[in-house]
Amino acid sequence: MSQAIQTPNFVVSGDLYAEVRTFYARQMRLLDQLDIQRYAETFTEDGVVDHASRGERAQGRAAMIAGMRQALPRYAGIAVRHFFDHLLIEPLDDERLSVTYYSLVTRTDAAGAVVFEPTFTVEDVLVRVDGALAAKSRTVYRDGAPA
Amino acid sequence: MSQAIQTPNFVVSGDLYAEVRTFYARQMRLLDQLDIQRYAETFTEDGVVDHASRGERAQGRAAMIAGMRQALPRYAGIAVRHFFDHLLIEPLDDERLSVTYYSLVTRTDAAGAVVFEPTFTVEDVLVRVDGALAAKSRTVYRDGAPA
Amino acid sequence: MSQAIQTPNFVVSGDLYAEVRTFYARQMRLLDQLDIQRYAETFTEDGVVDHASRGERAQGRAAMIAGMRQALPRYAGIAVRHFFDHLLIEPLDDERLSVTYYSLVTRTDAAGAVVFEPTFTVEDVLVRVDGALAAKSRTVYRDGAPA
Repeated sequence: MSQAIQTPNFVVSGDLYAEVRTFYARQMRLLDQLDIQRYAETFTEDGVVDHASRGERAQGRAAMIAGMRQALPRYAGIAVRHFFDHLLIEPLDDERLSVTYYSLVTRTDAAGAVVFEPTFTVEDVLVRVDGALAAKSRTVYRDGAPA
Repeated sequence: MSQAIQTPNFVVSGDLYAEVRTFYARQMRLLDQLDIQRYAETFTEDGVVDHASRGERAQGRAAMIAGMRQALPRYAGIAVRHFFDHLLIEPLDDERLSVTYYSLVTRTDAAGAVVFEPTFTVEDVLVRVDGALAAKSRTVYRDGAPA
Repeated sequence: MSQAIQTPNFVVSGDLYAEVRTFYARQMRLLDQLDIQRYAETFTEDGVVDHASRGERAQGRAAMIAGMRQALPRYAGIAVRHFFDHLLIEPLDDERLSVTYYSLVTRTDAAGAVVFEPTFTVEDVLVRVDGALAAKSRTVYRDGAPA
């Protein structure tokens, strides 16, 4: 978690906090509805998703979409939901925002039974494209994974 | 989830975001404390709660209270907590606000054991009554339920 | 939950909401990284942590640190994460802020298995020290514990 608590005196405004949370509210609906194409479009064209703990890294929307398409069969009949908490929003420079957060991921089956993935800590870099937020990179760390 | 991502360019203000979250912070305390009367008062007089996935619909505070009173024995000795995430707040028109969110519901028993209900996606319509927010309708979808 | 819903008409500003959430985002990272010293520094020097349901009360940073150090062996190989929700932020007077919230605590082991602590309801009093938020007291109630 290299970027967290980097600028301990930065206080995020209410407006930016709400905007970032709304970005994720939309992005996670797309991911959890398995709308892979529109999920990929919430990243920049050259966006990177790095599952650090399992050595999986996709660079660019096309690679992202291909990787997710391969994983789709795993989600047949399962409703996945990504819950976030403790967002820490800090500017890296004039153009980039570091956003780190906790994630708890549920899988509910058709009968209503819930199982949990291990918790994750996520580090995103967000930028603005035509005024709106977009993800430039996402690095996902599985909590408790041996270093 | 008909209303979500309806106005993709709408950016909620920090003040409205905080007000909506505070509305739910108060409303869920009342629900989880089984304070049925005061919970019902967070809805408009003609408010509707529709558990779409189990075909249960209560219209008006009196019906709401009657239905909840019947369910009370199920909660004896159990502390229920409704956790929310990914609120998406969007105006439907000048008077109505669409708020959709994820919900994770825990039940903790006297010994401290926790079990989980299936996750839910909820669609609310909020309005203002004497300046304060009130729920006009709530539609609850069980995630993963066969359509 | 004596302080909750005390000032039902108070509406927290977006800026204060974001600031309080950011305070907890930083504080919980320190706690969950077992950075006991820096966690204790998020409290005032005379800060109090009271686990009401198990009769454990630590007054002052030194007592807090000693108590937590003793508990450390329990967390070997376990990643603990404290998830919060439904923050209710209300001024007690010109200098003190009551913040109450729900808490869901996960423990993920090295293999990725997740177990849950019972849910908790927490009542904090926050103050400002040199402009920044600090915790003056924290009272933790285990949900469902017999009174």
